[in-house]
Amino acid sequence: MTAIVFNHATVRERADMLSFLHLSAERGIDTVSIWGDEITKVGEANALAALRDHGMKVSGYNRIGPFVPEYLGRAEAELERAARFGADHVFLFTGGLTEGERGLTAARWRAEDQIGRLLEMARRIGVKLAIEPLHPMLAGDRSVITSLTSANDLCEALGPGIGVVVDVYHLWWDERLEAEIMRAGRAGRLLGFHVNDWLLPTRHLLTDRGMMGDGIIDLPSIEGMMRRAGFRGAIEIEIFSTDWWARDPAELMDVAIARCQGLFSDLVYERAAQAVQLL
Amino acid sequence: MTAIVFNHATVRERADMLSFLHLSAERGIDTVSIWGDEITKVGEANALAALRDHGMKVSGYNRIGPFVPEYLGRAEAELERAARFGADHVFLFTGGLTEGERGLTAARWRAEDQIGRLLEMARRIGVKLAIEPLHPMLAGDRSVITSLTSANDLCEALGPGIGVVVDVYHLWWDERLEAEIMRAGRAGRLLGFHVNDWLLPTRHLLTDRGMMGDGIIDLPSIEGMMRRAGFRGAIEIEIFSTDWWARDPAELMDVAIARCQGLFSDLVYERAAQAVQLL
Repeated sequence: MTAIVFNHATVRERADMLSFLHLSAERGIDTVSIWGDEITKVGEANALAALRDHGMKVSGYNRIGPFVPEYLGRAEAELERAARFGADHVFLFTGGLTEGERGLTAARWRAEDQIGRLLEMARRIGVKLAIEPLHPMLAGDRSVITSLTSANDLCEALGPGIGVVVDVYHLWWDERLEAEIMRAGRAGRLLGFHVNDWLLPTRHLLTDRGMMGDGIIDLPSIEGMMRRAGFRGAIEIEIFSTDWWARDPAELMDVAIARCQGLFSDLVYERAAQAVQLL
Repeated sequence: MTAIVFNHATVRERADMLSFLHLSAERGIDTVSIWGDEITKVGEANALAALRDHGMKVSGYNRIGPFVPEYLGRAEAELERAARFGADHVFLFTGGLTEGERGLTAARWRAEDQIGRLLEMARRIGVKLAIEPLHPMLAGDRSVITSLTSANDLCEALGPGIGVVVDVYHLWWDERLEAEIMRAGRAGRLLGFHVNDWLLPTRHLLTDRGMMGDGIIDLPSIEGMMRRAGFRGAIEIEIFSTDWWARDPAELMDVAIARCQGLFSDLVYERAAQAVQLL
């Protein structure tokens, strides 16, 4: 695996999955994180063929959820598709409250119960599940798991086959972050590390994330925690931003790679020679 | 103290401090939370006279901060003014990062150090300080204290004269909320309870709070925690909302009171007979 992985969401507004794979390959990147709905758009056979042609692996598969009542019935097919794409892990997306519901207590119990059932399926199918705690500002509508503490607690209760993904955007503010990264590392459950940045001001709760270096997150410090906790995986670039989505995807990816090279001292990234042949 | 307190911020766009006091008195409310800048607008002598004429007390005084480098020099005068207004407690507003700074570690150390110095002043002057943890989405620019856990830790380290205010908007999502409210209650440091609501969707990080009952916070449940923790104070209504600021302040206050009566079973509120005479 190269040291950098792009999540397709970063360029999805202007690059379909086939273009995204091509752009990644051009940059010597051999691993990507992908989205089920984007596979559907280009057709699964085409998506699989493109991955094979580029010799590319899949890190994260987005996503299982939201956990609406009828969802569990469809989850098995989604997990099987993630397995066909050889995904290292599948993101769980709990969703938020049900209509008219108030408070998170019941929703959290429900999500934990559903994750337990999904884990049984995932073990049978042979894919790992990943809990990515989202920012507390998204607790009502996107994820009822809003801290790495909760994610670690849940993984501990459930046993093997499930781990966590640390996204700096969602967790940078948490005074427990270092301790919880270490805790996840000791248990061998750090599955991914997503980078982007928190802008000041932030104008939108969902689509105003920053390019690494443009915001106020101490990215090298959090990378240091991940490395000290034993995480050897790639740095995954995932930026949800209307501003960056409007830019040329190739330019965006080049800027992102350069920023990572400037910020992460341990980063080993070389634009592979064979990548040039794909141009 | 009546069971309901209004924070002037709730109506400040269309009611200056004198109008706000009149509107409160009309509704039989005998305690308010006030703002230093609003006192300045109407003149301190006028503000003090109006409070006296209405026989009204002050709960919270907003605010000490942000803690920019030159701030501590001005803090003493602000604390003294809070004392002249007989405020029960003074809100600390740490502010966020300094220009170019990344991550919260240094900013948190700085804020803790400054709060320690402010507490010495406040003890001398005879006012209580209140830490109100703000939502993690405001960590970068408004408060580096984003959990009741941190606030409790800090109060514990600093000793008497400082407590916490629980605002449902900032803390409703935290899985530690009940435990930390109980911890604060055991230490006798629950100084205030602010209500409003979290709307879905939330369109702005600062000015899109909801009226109680319009959002997804389980308000009766959090009030229950406060009461079980021994909090006997008033319910303070504090809504930062461009939508509600545009409405008639009297109407807003009546709606807010009615919502509180519907949501909080223990609430004792009666529009006092003498209030009508003020109309």
